[in-house]
Amino acid sequence: MKPVGVGILGLGTVGQGALTVLTRNYEEIERRAGRRIQVKRIAVRDLDKRRQIDHTNFDLTDDPSAIVDAPDIDIVIELIGGIDPARQLIELAIQNGKHVITANKELIATHGNELFKLAHSCSCIIAYEAAVCGGIPIIKALREGLSGNRIELLAGIINGTSNYILTGMRNKQCSFQEMLGHAQELGYAEADPTFDIEGIDALHKLAILGAVAFGTPLAPFDSILCEGIGDISYEDIAYADELGFTIKPLSVASRGPNGVEMRVHPSLISTQKLLAKVDGVMNGIVVDGDAVGRTLHYGAGAGGEPTASAVMADLVDIVRSLESKPNQRVPNMGFQPDTVSALPLVPISQLVSANYLRMSAENRAGVLADVTRILGDHGISIESILQKSLGDHKDVLPVVIVTQETTEQNMQDALIEIGALDSIIGKINRIRIENLP
Amino acid sequence: MKPVGVGILGLGTVGQGALTVLTRNYEEIERRAGRRIQVKRIAVRDLDKRRQIDHTNFDLTDDPSAIVDAPDIDIVIELIGGIDPARQLIELAIQNGKHVITANKELIATHGNELFKLAHSCSCIIAYEAAVCGGIPIIKALREGLSGNRIELLAGIINGTSNYILTGMRNKQCSFQEMLGHAQELGYAEADPTFDIEGIDALHKLAILGAVAFGTPLAPFDSILCEGIGDISYEDIAYADELGFTIKPLSVASRGPNGVEMRVHPSLISTQKLLAKVDGVMNGIVVDGDAVGRTLHYGAGAGGEPTASAVMADLVDIVRSLESKPNQRVPNMGFQPDTVSALPLVPISQLVSANYLRMSAENRAGVLADVTRILGDHGISIESILQKSLGDHKDVLPVVIVTQETTEQNMQDALIEIGALDSIIGKINRIRIENLP
Repeated sequence: MKPVGVGILGLGTVGQGALTVLTRNYEEIERRAGRRIQVKRIAVRDLDKRRQIDHTNFDLTDDPSAIVDAPDIDIVIELIGGIDPARQLIELAIQNGKHVITANKELIATHGNELFKLAHSCSCIIAYEAAVCGGIPIIKALREGLSGNRIELLAGIINGTSNYILTGMRNKQCSFQEMLGHAQELGYAEADPTFDIEGIDALHKLAILGAVAFGTPLAPFDSILCEGIGDISYEDIAYADELGFTIKPLSVASRGPNGVEMRVHPSLISTQKLLAKVDGVMNGIVVDGDAVGRTLHYGAGAGGEPTASAVMADLVDIVRSLESKPNQRVPNMGFQPDTVSALPLVPISQLVSANYLRMSAENRAGVLADVTRILGDHGISIESILQKSLGDHKDVLPVVIVTQETTEQNMQDALIEIGALDSIIGKINRIRIENLP
Repeated sequence: MKPVGVGILGLGTVGQGALTVLTRNYEEIERRAGRRIQVKRIAVRDLDKRRQIDHTNFDLTDDPSAIVDAPDIDIVIELIGGIDPARQLIELAIQNGKHVITANKELIATHGNELFKLAHSCSCIIAYEAAVCGGIPIIKALREGLSGNRIELLAGIINGTSNYILTGMRNKQCSFQEMLGHAQELGYAEADPTFDIEGIDALHKLAILGAVAFGTPLAPFDSILCEGIGDISYEDIAYADELGFTIKPLSVASRGPNGVEMRVHPSLISTQKLLAKVDGVMNGIVVDGDAVGRTLHYGAGAGGEPTASAVMADLVDIVRSLESKPNQRVPNMGFQPDTVSALPLVPISQLVSANYLRMSAENRAGVLADVTRILGDHGISIESILQKSLGDHKDVLPVVIVTQETTEQNMQDALIEIGALDSIIGKINRIRIENLP
């Protein structure tokens, strides 16, 4: 049988990782796939750029059509990232009958619904294990390994950069800005860290995970609550610790009687939970299925070789399926395309959570009474209050309040009123508390 | 398209779990599988036995040939357990061209090599996700999700009963016998707990995991080091804790320059490791792949519904593959059958580990010198010694020694000599120390 022809778009960190892993583990991969695999061509923007790996045995081109239009290529691996031109190239590849592997979370989260439809109509596979949580085979676990379950909830640390920063702030007792600087020095955060620290990268991944878990189309981004970690201070981490919690960048998709909830925000989680031990750049996802109960999937969420591990797994799957009929394959979303249907999404204002509130209050009688009255007016019960007396000579005291569960709307309304009190100085830091299974 | 016909052998805990999950999640499972699935018949030993679930909608028979020979059955789910008659029934089913799903770890570990060969020659699938670690999709992760990796090591807590007992001994500060009693009362341990507490159940699972990870035939059991947890006392757990370790029932398969190592034994592992937090009846497996690095797969390792979760995942996979050609499927071992080949197995005597030794020594000068001299004679270096003076009025003192890495042979030889010293009273408790990635 002739070798399977593969073309790669992009030779950045993940592209180089993929070439390295494919070359190093070629024998092991062929033993699994059952066919020879040949990288025919790699498209790069700049042919003259110096690269860290030796690519002299590979044919580089700066013309991506030499990949997506090439008759000798069966499978296209898209590792460019971003929307354009990745989207157009993938569409061309599919229209030419090629299967596609992509690590592009932004593209799949944004245009997955249309791309999957196109792929279905052309009997092609779009494999995207590498788009979510690097080397953790979480898409496979959700689509296949847990396919007997009604999945109720998934909650994960799915952005390594944010986790690295919050873990470092705790361990080094330092500020957000300081740890962001460290992360940038080490290459864990981009020069423009917006996507990572504002939760956008996690939102992309969560949209994909939620759709695959529940069998729905990818949700519109504005239906997903998204908050970053930029407002967390070391003080919050220290107070959380005192209360028995760790602050983690959490992404949650769940379904309940009122529909599907999706949210990305920092959370206080009990230090007793396994997810609280997922530190540094590592990722971990808890999946709660009605039959299996709680499972945890942990590993490196980014990096050249871990992401390449997912690309190679998709490659082996597709090579085995090359001659199969579309109905013999795992559908793109795990569910048959004609059964993928939207579920109602819980409006952000109706999301429910317990809350940690930290504020600075004037050191005089009656201040706390004002705050608790406002919370009570909005139907918010108080779980505990942490107020440290620093003595009479201080004008301003820190107050930490833990509330019981309430809706987003009630919390927001109460926060506006509390913030308007003369006796409350500066910003109120509010972090949700997650009661994980 | 006509529904896929399914026959089930056995209606015990897992069989009832499978029926419950299939009935409850039927719609979700059909959305994934793309075809209707119909349970045609269930074979039981005793038709009159009262069962916990309502099975009035199902056709029960006490004749298993009404399943393995039946033309209307495409897939046989074997949930009887044990070698006989499960083996004969599976062979008959395969010879009749039926695909098989089994939760039978003992059978696959013991006769998997022949069964896989038979299945291959008959173009049938034997799916066995449920045989290892219940609901954790670890076979799928190894065979498919991590297929781009050269897997170097897997280390796991793969027997829930042992983990429940050791976790309970630590939390309740009680003896092995006491916790075994609790486990039996709660149904976590059988009336005859041999398979669980002596490591045999874990050995079966490890043999399967190792073969799938490395692409080798299933190893003969006598090449696998196997020790149970029956000798662990609460004192060991307390000393381990003092040294920064937790004692866990560990199973390890690894490959190094000298070949493949497989071993099942209690281990001291650092309390800092995620695996140290896998408590109670839960299972967790660390897989170390050369591309992905370290991943952890955590979940319920046993129980009706978690195991049914794995059975259903296999069912969905097979339903999708029914019309496919054998070379389009995931091979039984993850590797193409003609590439599965034995690797040398490191002889048990040459296995290397650091060790925790606890002994009772006469309270007089020179005893420790004798012990350390013997260790030195066998080339064993000492990492640390913990000796608590209980005052001069005690005749016997506990001594805990932590050694550096040494071979099994050296350790065994030294233990015989130390045990022969007049000044050492009773049995020496030796527990290996695992340096996890």
